[in-house]
Amino acid sequence: MKTIFSNKQLGHRDHHELYNGELVPGFETHARSEFILSSLKRADLGQVLEPETHDLETARQIHVPDYLEFLSKAWDMWERDGRSGTALPYAWPSRGLRGRVRPTSLDGLLGYYSFDASTGFVRGTWEAVKASHDTVLTGADIVSAGNPAAFALCRPPGHHAGPDFAGGYCFINNAAVAAQRLRNSGADRVTVLDIDYHHGNGTQEIFYERDDVQVVNLHADPSYEYPFYIGAAEEKGAGPGLGFTVNYPMPAGTEWSAWSQALEHALGEVRSFSPERLVVSLGVDTFEGDPISRFKLRKEHFRQTGALIAQMGLPTLFVMEGGYAVEAVGENVLAVLQGFESA
Amino acid sequence: MKTIFSNKQLGHRDHHELYNGELVPGFETHARSEFILSSLKRADLGQVLEPETHDLETARQIHVPDYLEFLSKAWDMWERDGRSGTALPYAWPSRGLRGRVRPTSLDGLLGYYSFDASTGFVRGTWEAVKASHDTVLTGADIVSAGNPAAFALCRPPGHHAGPDFAGGYCFINNAAVAAQRLRNSGADRVTVLDIDYHHGNGTQEIFYERDDVQVVNLHADPSYEYPFYIGAAEEKGAGPGLGFTVNYPMPAGTEWSAWSQALEHALGEVRSFSPERLVVSLGVDTFEGDPISRFKLRKEHFRQTGALIAQMGLPTLFVMEGGYAVEAVGENVLAVLQGFESA
Repeated sequence: MKTIFSNKQLGHRDHHELYNGELVPGFETHARSEFILSSLKRADLGQVLEPETHDLETARQIHVPDYLEFLSKAWDMWERDGRSGTALPYAWPSRGLRGRVRPTSLDGLLGYYSFDASTGFVRGTWEAVKASHDTVLTGADIVSAGNPAAFALCRPPGHHAGPDFAGGYCFINNAAVAAQRLRNSGADRVTVLDIDYHHGNGTQEIFYERDDVQVVNLHADPSYEYPFYIGAAEEKGAGPGLGFTVNYPMPAGTEWSAWSQALEHALGEVRSFSPERLVVSLGVDTFEGDPISRFKLRKEHFRQTGALIAQMGLPTLFVMEGGYAVEAVGENVLAVLQGFESA
Repeated sequence: MKTIFSNKQLGHRDHHELYNGELVPGFETHARSEFILSSLKRADLGQVLEPETHDLETARQIHVPDYLEFLSKAWDMWERDGRSGTALPYAWPSRGLRGRVRPTSLDGLLGYYSFDASTGFVRGTWEAVKASHDTVLTGADIVSAGNPAAFALCRPPGHHAGPDFAGGYCFINNAAVAAQRLRNSGADRVTVLDIDYHHGNGTQEIFYERDDVQVVNLHADPSYEYPFYIGAAEEKGAGPGLGFTVNYPMPAGTEWSAWSQALEHALGEVRSFSPERLVVSLGVDTFEGDPISRFKLRKEHFRQTGALIAQMGLPTLFVMEGGYAVEAVGENVLAVLQGFESA
C-alpha cells in the first residue's frame, strides 16, 4: 500500500493547549507522524510518496471559504499584534443570541471559527494544514486511479473540523475533502467510516444533509467524552441526508468484543449503502495505552480491524486521525494496514 | 447612600484565565472590591452593610435551576477528581449540531454551562458568588423599602451570565436578579441600564423576550471587543420583548463627548419606558487607564455620569460590574455615586 506524507506537515509544532485547567504541550505532536512513518518503513509496507500540490477548490466545496481564508492568516494576524506562544481563542459564540455578529478582531475570529481551546496556531500551522490536505487529495487520486488502497498519513488530523470551525487539533477536514474528491472523480456514493476514539463531529456536520456521502462513526459516548455535545445514536442526518449518518457511541472501558460487534454492525450499514469508495478515518486512540482515551483495544485487534474492513472489497483510502500513545501509534497503525492487506 | 458587601465575596481568588494565549492571573481580582470599599469609606459615602442571607428562589426565576446547581458543585467535582488549579472548560457547544447532548462529565458540563475560558472555579467561588447574590438582593430590598438609592458592591460581577451560562467572570447575573426582585416587590416596569465597557450579553439574553424589564446597553462594539458575538444595534428584543432591548455599540477610542451623547439618548429611551425602578450595571472599565479596555473616560466623566443618571429621579440600585485598573476603580466608582448623590 502506498503512503503519502510531506515533511511540511511537521511544521505545526511546539503549540500548547488548555487541558485540565492548565496550558500543556499539545498532545497532537509532530512526533506522532514520525513514529508512524518509521513503523511503515521498518515493515516495508510500500512506497512513501510526497503529495502533489493542490489548490483549495475541493476544500471549498465542504468548508466555508471565509473559514479557509482565516486559517491561512490567523498566525500572521497574531504575530502582527506582537503576540507570541500559541494563538488560542478564549471566548466562543456558544449559546442563545450568540453568533449573530461575525467579529473582525483576531480574538473574536479565533473563537468564531472554533469550539475549543485545544486547537491553536503557531508559525508553521497553515503550511502543515495545507500539506496535510495535499496529502489526502493525492491519496484520493491514487484510489480513484484504480489502486485498491492508499494511506494518507495526514497530520494535523481533520475529523473534528466542520464547515467553518476548527477544533480537536483539526483545521481542514481531510477525510471530508477526500470524500468530496472521490465524488468529484465519479464515485456516486462514498462512505466515511470513522473509527477514531472520538466522535468525528466535523465530518458528520459537513455531510449531515447529504445523501451521497454516508458517515458512520464508532466512538466514545459524548455524554462523558470529548467533543461532548454531539454524536448520540439519535443523530441520523437531516433532510435528504436522513438515514445517512450512523452513530455508535460506546461507554468508557469498551473492549474488543463490544467494539468489534459495533464495527460489524457498522459494516452492515455500509453494505446497505453500497458505496463505490470507502474513506476510513483512522484513529488508534481506541488503544488501551492511550493517555487521553478510555477504550481497551490491543495491537492484535487493530490487525483484525484492518481485515474486517478489507472484507468489504471496496477501494479504500485510510486517512490518519488521532492516537496519542506516541510510540505505540506506529505499530497500531501498521497493524490496521497490514491486517487490511493480508485479508 | 448605603453600600452592601460581604467579605465572603473575597473568597473567589487566585484563579487563572486564558488570555492572549496564556494562562494568567484573573483580572477580576478580590482586590478590586477592597479598593472600592476603602474609597467609599475614606469619602464617608454612607453605611456599609452586610447582606442578609437569601435563598435562590429569585435567581431561579431568571436562571435555569440545573445551571445554579452546577455552579454550586463545580469545584467539588473538580477536587473530587484529584485536580487542582482553576477549574476551566476547554470545549464548548459552539456550532451547528452542538448542544443536543447535555453531557454528564465535568469537562463537558464546564463547557456546556459557559462560553469562555475566563471564568474558572476555585475553592471559594461558590460561596463568593452566593454572597454577591445576597448582596444584590439586600440592595434591591433597600430600594424597594423606599430609599432613593443603594450600592450593591457585587463581586464576582454578573452581567455576562445568562439563563444557563457563565462567562466574563460572571456566574449569577446579579443585576438581573435585582431586576426580578424589584418586579416581585411590586414595580411594574424596571430598567437595567448597563454602562460597563463590555456588552451585558447575559442580561440581554435573560430579558430578551420580556416587556416588563427594559435592558439598555452602552458598550464597545462586539465586532472588535469581548463578548464579540452579541450586542449589535440591530438586536432589539423578540416576541413580547421587541423594542425593550436597546444597544449602543461604540468604536475603540470612544471619548466622553460621544459616550455622553449615547448616554443621553439612552436615558431618553428609559424615560419613554417610564420604569418605576432603575438598576445600573456599573462598570468603570470605560476608564482611559483600564488595562483590558479601549474607551477614554476620565474621573470627572464618572461624576457627570452619576449626575445624569440622578436626573431621572428614579429609585436606583447601583450594581458593581467590571473595571480592572485596580487602584483607580475605587475612585471612579466613588465619583459615579457622589455625582448621583450631589445632583
